[in-house]
Amino acid sequence: MRHFLSTLDHSSADLAQLVDLALRFKGGGRGPIRSGPDLRGRVLGLVFFNPSVRTRVSCESAMARLGGTATALSPGRDTWRFEERPGAMMDGDTQEHIAELAPVLAGLCDAVGIRKAEMMSGGNGARGGAAAWDELKRDTFLTAFAERSEVPVINLESNSSHPCQGLADMATLRELCGEPRGQRYVLTWAWHPKALPVATPHSQLLAAADSGMRITLLRPEGYDLAPEVIRAAGERAEAAGGGLEVSSDRELSLQGAKIVCAKSWGRLDAYGQSQEAARPADELRERWIVNEEAMARTADAHFMHCLPIRRNVIATDAVLDSPRSAVVRQATNRLWSAAAILASLLGE
Amino acid sequence: MRHFLSTLDHSSADLAQLVDLALRFKGGGRGPIRSGPDLRGRVLGLVFFNPSVRTRVSCESAMARLGGTATALSPGRDTWRFEERPGAMMDGDTQEHIAELAPVLAGLCDAVGIRKAEMMSGGNGARGGAAAWDELKRDTFLTAFAERSEVPVINLESNSSHPCQGLADMATLRELCGEPRGQRYVLTWAWHPKALPVATPHSQLLAAADSGMRITLLRPEGYDLAPEVIRAAGERAEAAGGGLEVSSDRELSLQGAKIVCAKSWGRLDAYGQSQEAARPADELRERWIVNEEAMARTADAHFMHCLPIRRNVIATDAVLDSPRSAVVRQATNRLWSAAAILASLLGE
Amino acid sequence: MRHFLSTLDHSSADLAQLVDLALRFKGGGRGPIRSGPDLRGRVLGLVFFNPSVRTRVSCESAMARLGGTATALSPGRDTWRFEERPGAMMDGDTQEHIAELAPVLAGLCDAVGIRKAEMMSGGNGARGGAAAWDELKRDTFLTAFAERSEVPVINLESNSSHPCQGLADMATLRELCGEPRGQRYVLTWAWHPKALPVATPHSQLLAAADSGMRITLLRPEGYDLAPEVIRAAGERAEAAGGGLEVSSDRELSLQGAKIVCAKSWGRLDAYGQSQEAARPADELRERWIVNEEAMARTADAHFMHCLPIRRNVIATDAVLDSPRSAVVRQATNRLWSAAAILASLLGE
Repeated sequence: MRHFLSTLDHSSADLAQLVDLALRFKGGGRGPIRSGPDLRGRVLGLVFFNPSVRTRVSCESAMARLGGTATALSPGRDTWRFEERPGAMMDGDTQEHIAELAPVLAGLCDAVGIRKAEMMSGGNGARGGAAAWDELKRDTFLTAFAERSEVPVINLESNSSHPCQGLADMATLRELCGEPRGQRYVLTWAWHPKALPVATPHSQLLAAADSGMRITLLRPEGYDLAPEVIRAAGERAEAAGGGLEVSSDRELSLQGAKIVCAKSWGRLDAYGQSQEAARPADELRERWIVNEEAMARTADAHFMHCLPIRRNVIATDAVLDSPRSAVVRQATNRLWSAAAILASLLGE
Repeated sequence: MRHFLSTLDHSSADLAQLVDLALRFKGGGRGPIRSGPDLRGRVLGLVFFNPSVRTRVSCESAMARLGGTATALSPGRDTWRFEERPGAMMDGDTQEHIAELAPVLAGLCDAVGIRKAEMMSGGNGARGGAAAWDELKRDTFLTAFAERSEVPVINLESNSSHPCQGLADMATLRELCGEPRGQRYVLTWAWHPKALPVATPHSQLLAAADSGMRITLLRPEGYDLAPEVIRAAGERAEAAGGGLEVSSDRELSLQGAKIVCAKSWGRLDAYGQSQEAARPADELRERWIVNEEAMARTADAHFMHCLPIRRNVIATDAVLDSPRSAVVRQATNRLWSAAAILASLLGE
Repeated sequence: MRHFLSTLDHSSADLAQLVDLALRFKGGGRGPIRSGPDLRGRVLGLVFFNPSVRTRVSCESAMARLGGTATALSPGRDTWRFEERPGAMMDGDTQEHIAELAPVLAGLCDAVGIRKAEMMSGGNGARGGAAAWDELKRDTFLTAFAERSEVPVINLESNSSHPCQGLADMATLRELCGEPRGQRYVLTWAWHPKALPVATPHSQLLAAADSGMRITLLRPEGYDLAPEVIRAAGERAEAAGGGLEVSSDRELSLQGAKIVCAKSWGRLDAYGQSQEAARPADELRERWIVNEEAMARTADAHFMHCLPIRRNVIATDAVLDSPRSAVVRQATNRLWSAAAILASLLGE
């Protein structure tokens, strides 16, 4: 494994092995991870263009438990702005090109993690809608960085995917289901006061697919995830013993579900707008909240969410405070899956 | 010891043992603390809602010297805003509830330190004056976090107390006085261009009380600390062989003092106002500065202040630069007392 | 070696020994530096008044590879503002005096690194031009801090110098030239959309001087570096077997050069103005860019720049992407020279 940029770059079997490793680490309990490689004197550089709690702390904590060190930079605040366009005439407000930044950070660190998501409205072009998404999904900064880095690069959330979340979800599904293969998993859209990016639901969908689950992607009409991700998830799910269907019928879809994973996201054709402008229609709010009534339709499903979650907007207090809620487990599994990724990338 | 939220949660004897440990660590000199527990692979998460120099660096340095790792988050800058109200409908500007944040950070870290002080004007209510203080003193975020955290929580300064400063002051009093019991300690108010919170003087008063000193709380009329803290300090001081009196007579109070600890704070009935609006009256300025004339009334007292200190406002250069000034000692004792707290909370 | 504030404080021979050490560390490869001192439990405090990528990460990485820990503060953001004027009446917007800050940080850490550069326009006085520079070049904060610190202080870039860059450049010159003594080195000015400080070119000039190179300082009329630095560089270069001349004739100067180091800087008499107001004249832009045509005049010179570099402004893509570009090597040598500095300051 050279980089960890998307779970799509790795086979379901390889990801399952990473999950094995993560759960073995977790079994060792708190404190130093004695069954992993010794990363003393190894340095993980973390570059956060966007805020973070779980991702940063899980990576730092994983590195520390393996004996190593992490350091986090926040570009544009701790540093200047970076340029990624080849051939750019840099007499504007960018001060450093990725052509230098990537090999330099790779020279100073042993691995580099990058979070860079444009939060719907970004991108170099002024184009909106599907064209904006088509541009942003290429994750040009991350990709160019990885190409130029001689050390492993970890995607800490880009426009298109959030593979660390995906791996943690695979570990959580394993814990919750024992054998997730063939069990019913629903990834359900929920309303949110701002339009949110699709990276996380992409990786969550793939996590269930790589686990071989029978997946329903449940969302209102118009809120499809990227077609290529849905296609890949379907193929991987089938190959692993599951399958994927897309539905907007919540009542039907929740029946028999063992896992309900909630997440809000914006419309792909709303990319290029601000998160506020692309706010989902208010009429979807009450219909899509995950409440006790919704959970009652399931086969006593576990409830998942990547966090942070807006209580009583995405899901009710009753759902989040019930014993079937796995959101804290899911978040703390970020630590163990980060450790598995780091051990695989940096261990001998 | 489960958490370290207020020195009031611990007996004077237990605090004295922590001071023993801190001074033993200090005696070992710079570099790794060899007489403490090995905290390799253990992670301290630090959450700073307010700025910090001494508190952050002392905790990080203590953790490093014990072999462990610390990581600091600044909510609202590195992260989003947090919600603490039970049952909140989170469709506003808070994005994560403490009901998730606390167990998640507790799952990623081995201990969590929190600095959250509203700096007079905060609070959820629009109520001012004593009502604002009555609300803020409950430290609802810290308390709710600790209740939901399975790992130790350390108060790095809340609205009501600053126990890390308190413990460091106890260590300093021990060093300066040998046996502080029965010696004269004056906590004197001083003027400051902005109204400051009462958390630190609360913990300083308690530090002298738990040390069994004969305390004078010296302040202008109207600048009382919280009555329940004065009461507790008096009881603890008496139980430990000292006592407490409150006075506004500076000339009399300074006589015979072995320790003069200066600190500015705002009126409790000014809580809910901005720090600027609650600025102490200018006429108090010259009368309450600690200068050579004031120190000359004492029994060659040592001068203490928690830092940062505004020179020539709280105390004059002559006082701060005199050999009787203990402010640097006091601040560096923050390192050793933090190490003692961490060793006690995290050591086997 | 007590502090590392300027390469001028150390002899050329002592600096050469630091370079030896840096390259020996580099020869050991990635991971822990096994041939250095064990800095377990030792803490490096980093204080950044200005943004940083290379300096911060190289110091943190070096410390980690030596077994120690680093922590970075950003004053004015993580903390309040500091006062350095002796006798200041601190009732304004500074909240802590260096008289306390320095010994306190020295008490909490084992070494302190400080980056504080006023970026042309700063300074306490309202005086502009040469008077502003005469004030800023004294680096009063850094100097006062070092005087009051009982632990080593490292200059991470001040108004007058950037010795960590200087030492890394010496290491790079050694690698590129084998024996730099007597070889031709050109430090060439280049145009930049904002006026930049002179600290880095000062230290780069001294790096070539201490390496005994035959130096040309190449700049447009009016863009001289500080006369005392030019004088010192000339003397040290001569003593080490080289020499120094100043020129504005680019065609002539580049002939025979083995090293071309590009850097932009502002006029000394523009200090006290904003970086935008002091922007170099546009007519200098095309004449001073380092392009293939310029490099073709040299003796197949290596190209150096301290980074970050604005591509196609300071130098063209063709120069930066050519095999003769050493800019990434130069930046990653920051790690090894930082490790050498830390090992020398903190090792037994």
